[in-house]
Amino acid sequence: MKVFNTSFTLSTEERCEVSDITKLIREVIQQSPVANGIALINTLHTTCALFINEFQTALLSDMKRFLEQMVARDAEWLHNDPDHSDCDRMNADAHLRALLLGHSLTLQISGGEVVLGQWQRILMAELDGPRARTLRIQIFGIS
Amino acid sequence: MKVFNTSFTLSTEERCEVSDITKLIREVIQQSPVANGIALINTLHTTCALFINEFQTALLSDMKRFLEQMVARDAEWLHNDPDHSDCDRMNADAHLRALLLGHSLTLQISGGEVVLGQWQRILMAELDGPRARTLRIQIFGIS
Amino acid sequence: MKVFNTSFTLSTEERCEVSDITKLIREVIQQSPVANGIALINTLHTTCALFINEFQTALLSDMKRFLEQMVARDAEWLHNDPDHSDCDRMNADAHLRALLLGHSLTLQISGGEVVLGQWQRILMAELDGPRARTLRIQIFGIS
Repeated sequence: MKVFNTSFTLSTEERCEVSDITKLIREVIQQSPVANGIALINTLHTTCALFINEFQTALLSDMKRFLEQMVARDAEWLHNDPDHSDCDRMNADAHLRALLLGHSLTLQISGGEVVLGQWQRILMAELDGPRARTLRIQIFGIS
Repeated sequence: MKVFNTSFTLSTEERCEVSDITKLIREVIQQSPVANGIALINTLHTTCALFINEFQTALLSDMKRFLEQMVARDAEWLHNDPDHSDCDRMNADAHLRALLLGHSLTLQISGGEVVLGQWQRILMAELDGPRARTLRIQIFGIS
Repeated sequence: MKVFNTSFTLSTEERCEVSDITKLIREVIQQSPVANGIALINTLHTTCALFINEFQTALLSDMKRFLEQMVARDAEWLHNDPDHSDCDRMNADAHLRALLLGHSLTLQISGGEVVLGQWQRILMAELDGPRARTLRIQIFGIS
């Protein structure tokens, strides 16, 4: 059994944006010695998220609108209140939005390729950018 | 170490329905050579979801009502707008509901059986049916 | 390859509370023979949840308020209605809140330590306490 660890850092440009990282993950898997197994991808952050969905401009706008509807940025969150928190980023909304989406993905590798359906893409949601974000990837399996 | 891959296809009957797939997953695990390890279950779709919860008729109705409250089907989503999208299924709500629930499960196998609590069942939510849905399962571990 | 299984039980004190279980998980990983691999943590319950986020008193209050906003406890859920359900705990809200947060975590182990970012903590949300809750942990990898 082989375990292959790597990480990479992405720079985001907007406060809230969704990036397609499928190609990056495919390249990491091709560099690994694993042909059949698991790829585990974790963000090392509390205000960004990883998930699988379709990457379409219209749908990305809908996702942003949906997250804004679910968690208002300007509600009186205690995490944003200097009397209760030493957080200077005013990013309670980003923490709560990250809860909904999740911080990791566990994907199957078969024949050296990540297993995805026709419309599935590996997406990273920046929720409090712009910032540098580190993803750690562990690939686990047999050659 | 053994890696066992399989998939199956389910036909759903309603636009939005929750199915109990626990028995199907138990059968797949029994067919595999793994007694101690992980079962990773992924949908290959962007408008259905997998999760663990109780399977009770009253609670399933509550789940459907909850998803409808969280994501209105008829809000003016861009993904449903022919000026912005070539999607002809008008299913933005299904994509957004899938984000909340997740597309995969990672379960423990011990003594040849999936580890579940008393009320836990393995559930698949169809969010844009009726359709045929493919689940891919990877079982990973030692005999 | 080594597979190490264990479980522990936590007693919660409030109906809705978030606990930091990072230290407990670190101790379990140190007791295991695995230095490089995966730690899979599952609750065996349908009304509590596991997730990763920052552990800060102000933010925990925000999380509780957010869950209460997302899922009203006193909406007329069928799961709480004796005409439709034999559930005597009136906990439909807890089931629905658990759906949003998820019931398991898959974490990386490297150099004998769980891989977490600076602000990341392993959190358990009790959603229908006070109760005893069992977590099952499977550690999987090479020494």
